[in-house]
Amino acid sequence: MVPSAERIVYCVSDHTGLTAEAMAQSLISRFDGVGVTYSTRPFVDDLAKVEHLVQEINAASTVGPKPIVFSTITDPEFGRILRQADALVLGLFDTFMDSLASELCVEPTESVGRYHGFFNTASYQNRFDAVDYVLNTDDGLGTSLYEDADVIIIGVSRVGKTPTCLYLGMQYGIRAANFPLTPDWLDSLRIPSVLDAHLDRLFGLTIDPVRLYQIRQKRRPDSPYASLEQCGIEVSAAERIYQDSRIPLLDTTTRSIEEITAALIEAVGLERRRT
Amino acid sequence: MVPSAERIVYCVSDHTGLTAEAMAQSLISRFDGVGVTYSTRPFVDDLAKVEHLVQEINAASTVGPKPIVFSTITDPEFGRILRQADALVLGLFDTFMDSLASELCVEPTESVGRYHGFFNTASYQNRFDAVDYVLNTDDGLGTSLYEDADVIIIGVSRVGKTPTCLYLGMQYGIRAANFPLTPDWLDSLRIPSVLDAHLDRLFGLTIDPVRLYQIRQKRRPDSPYASLEQCGIEVSAAERIYQDSRIPLLDTTTRSIEEITAALIEAVGLERRRT
Repeated sequence: MVPSAERIVYCVSDHTGLTAEAMAQSLISRFDGVGVTYSTRPFVDDLAKVEHLVQEINAASTVGPKPIVFSTITDPEFGRILRQADALVLGLFDTFMDSLASELCVEPTESVGRYHGFFNTASYQNRFDAVDYVLNTDDGLGTSLYEDADVIIIGVSRVGKTPTCLYLGMQYGIRAANFPLTPDWLDSLRIPSVLDAHLDRLFGLTIDPVRLYQIRQKRRPDSPYASLEQCGIEVSAAERIYQDSRIPLLDTTTRSIEEITAALIEAVGLERRRT
Repeated sequence: MVPSAERIVYCVSDHTGLTAEAMAQSLISRFDGVGVTYSTRPFVDDLAKVEHLVQEINAASTVGPKPIVFSTITDPEFGRILRQADALVLGLFDTFMDSLASELCVEPTESVGRYHGFFNTASYQNRFDAVDYVLNTDDGLGTSLYEDADVIIIGVSRVGKTPTCLYLGMQYGIRAANFPLTPDWLDSLRIPSVLDAHLDRLFGLTIDPVRLYQIRQKRRPDSPYASLEQCGIEVSAAERIYQDSRIPLLDTTTRSIEEITAALIEAVGLERRRT
């Protein structure tokens, strides 16, 4: 790989850079075989920083392909300076602000960095509380708190329960508990009795046994726990339990945490409390 | 509040809806005093779903202000149908795809839902591993694992260490440990001795004592732990320790998790491993 042939994609923001990154990744991922290097530049919030960045972009453009810039810079003047860089500059505010202001019949505020302002409110506290809830009910802990659960995720070891619950809490303020389907319960082909009273809030995760085998091998190589046979037995038993008890389920094999959580929210009809 | 006077902002996606939400929130938050209700519609990935949504938007538009639609629908035909809705439709792909394709000299793929495709790779596994690391080193646990830490976050109880570490792991694949500055250590005005060997990776969080008091009161009302006096003493001592040991610090009082983590990454010069 020749570094200079890679196209640099700058994600430029006067704030955290998360929106610029999301835009960039959404769009760039549609182009197969294009080699890119991402460079996120958050907190570009004064003239000196903008001008310095433009110089850097121009320098990169002289030694490699023309850079691409995704910008969520809010200040119109900073946006204008950035657009003069020798790059393809795609700006969220440059592009959409006028039509939005015209539709809303309101002038936008000029203050920088308001993006996450609404997180500093009740819903922000919701998210913190939800993360606490997830930690207190992780992996079969705190079953006495299940009355407060929005959803209780079940599945075999390493299917992805904990990251899914944490993302549900952190991103959406959803109280997600999780309970492991251990071999004992799987052998009995029953859901654990502590879950009997919460059947309507259960959600099952499943996974391709070969993928599970790969994940478990990394954790405890060559153990019975990580054998392909054991993975197959556990996944089959878990899926049978979901089917028998009519528990909605999702396959995590080829899905990211973002995809699992979004699909789960749709499936269960949970509210996205973030907004 | 009259519900029909609130403007509905639809975040429409053929995938998770996260990018559409981020766009919407970035832009809408700039307009003070505009009452909006967000409605995220993920997985709008076939013709029937698009047409049904258009009908719903049109119905909303007859009883309230014209809806606003932020769309990350990738299919050009679905995008065209959505734009015919009686709403202000702002589409990420509609707007930017052509100039991007022209600059890259590559035709975009038509497949839906590729956004998070790259998470299903090594960096995706990184994020899972990082979340494991955070859980194994939360709140002073697993200090023997500190050699692997990208950053070790310290601070008083309830300053925001755990959510910050989890977000660093989940979003960026950063291995963030955290260690509590308990009253014993604070009294001695020294960093805990277990951290002596890792001074270069320490990062301190601080907070306004009144805000800390509010948070702790929710947790243990009327306890000495939650008294305003105790909060003030702990915060002062922690800040003194940061100063004496030249530990970089950040005030979490008015910052969201997203803001804290982005600022921390900048301050420490960590790599955003997500991309």
